[in-house]
Amino acid sequence: MPHTHIRALVFDIFGTVVDWRGSLIAEGQALQARLGCQANWAALADAWRAGYRPAMDRVNRGEWPWANIDGLHRMILDELLPRFGLDHLPEAERDALNRAWHRLNPWPDSVAGLHQLRRHRVISTLSNGNVALLVNMAKRAGLPWDCVLSAELIGRYKPDLEVYRSAARLLGFAPEQVMMVAAHPSDLAAAQQAGLKTTYIPRPDEYGPGGWMEPVGDTVFDITAPSLEALAKALGA
Amino acid sequence: MPHTHIRALVFDIFGTVVDWRGSLIAEGQALQARLGCQANWAALADAWRAGYRPAMDRVNRGEWPWANIDGLHRMILDELLPRFGLDHLPEAERDALNRAWHRLNPWPDSVAGLHQLRRHRVISTLSNGNVALLVNMAKRAGLPWDCVLSAELIGRYKPDLEVYRSAARLLGFAPEQVMMVAAHPSDLAAAQQAGLKTTYIPRPDEYGPGGWMEPVGDTVFDITAPSLEALAKALGA
Repeated sequence: MPHTHIRALVFDIFGTVVDWRGSLIAEGQALQARLGCQANWAALADAWRAGYRPAMDRVNRGEWPWANIDGLHRMILDELLPRFGLDHLPEAERDALNRAWHRLNPWPDSVAGLHQLRRHRVISTLSNGNVALLVNMAKRAGLPWDCVLSAELIGRYKPDLEVYRSAARLLGFAPEQVMMVAAHPSDLAAAQQAGLKTTYIPRPDEYGPGGWMEPVGDTVFDITAPSLEALAKALGA
Repeated sequence: MPHTHIRALVFDIFGTVVDWRGSLIAEGQALQARLGCQANWAALADAWRAGYRPAMDRVNRGEWPWANIDGLHRMILDELLPRFGLDHLPEAERDALNRAWHRLNPWPDSVAGLHQLRRHRVISTLSNGNVALLVNMAKRAGLPWDCVLSAELIGRYKPDLEVYRSAARLLGFAPEQVMMVAAHPSDLAAAQQAGLKTTYIPRPDEYGPGGWMEPVGDTVFDITAPSLEALAKALGA
């Protein structure tokens, strides 16, 4: 079995394991069909996601007190709704829409790939998403995690190096025995700086067909694979 | 379905879900067969376990810095080995024996009961065992947790009330939507004080047939059931 020194795989979730954009658009369209409120749901999904990094950066810099992703998502959503003609959306609907992030659908290869990968290794989330979000998502989508690790448990957001180091420590392994799997080179560059091994899973449809992809930059990944099933094959799982 | 307000079940592990004493005795006997070192393994298991509560209390009182259960187990083991004529045990064997706590066997009803209980509710560990221990145990025994919560993530040991409150908060539920399941009345009394619902699973063989059981005291449990399968039935799962 290749890469036998790798004992655990930790996964970025939004974009890597699940299709946040397609799922949010479908949630918006369902809301539109139910309530008759029209909006550019793709643009709302993109703007919602775009607010996420700056919000986490403010928490990491200590400008904001700790707030989990459910809380940050809600703050961003409340700011965006008027811009999308949705300021009349009542509280219960806002809360339900905010929890769409708990109901994201996996990419087609994710569930089968994770089942293969967990045969010989520990598999865990390592997401900025909060624990409840990750647990609810996994239960609905059938993602067979051995462990649910989240920035919420560390009190810092990725790419803070302490998040990656803590994940290895909590799983009982040295950093080099743990491999970070992500669709975003910046996440992998930070994991590598913390001593973890890296797998890059390009997700060219993350921002829609032909959409934006984070530039790869100069990080050399240990493995690059087009899907989690292909990664399982590369690891001999 | 009865008790529909209960959205998550959190489980004590040592004694409630797994048979620590029988498993440790079997590990000791295997060591004896392999290395020829004789010892009273049942007495060692009992003494090892007996050292656990005072060690955690010292951490909770701030007399000792945080140490996870792997660390506390190892400190206790090193103290005990001379008393059991095992002071010659080399480092690698001590480490392997200490990790016997990662390889505890479930009670006969545990795996089937958990599979039933997870159909309609979130199920999570809520153990003083560290994350790596709980993950390794679950993987080996097939315990299908939705989430692995541990005192290690809170930095306090049960029965500190903050452990129970944090579990509910991390799972995204109010305390009264979460039920603590345990074989130890003191654990349940603390959970109840933190606002959680309680299920008592008596495990009369925890300290061996006819062995000690923690007195029930005056706590009124929401449910008492003889097994996790019986609990699943009581919850209509």
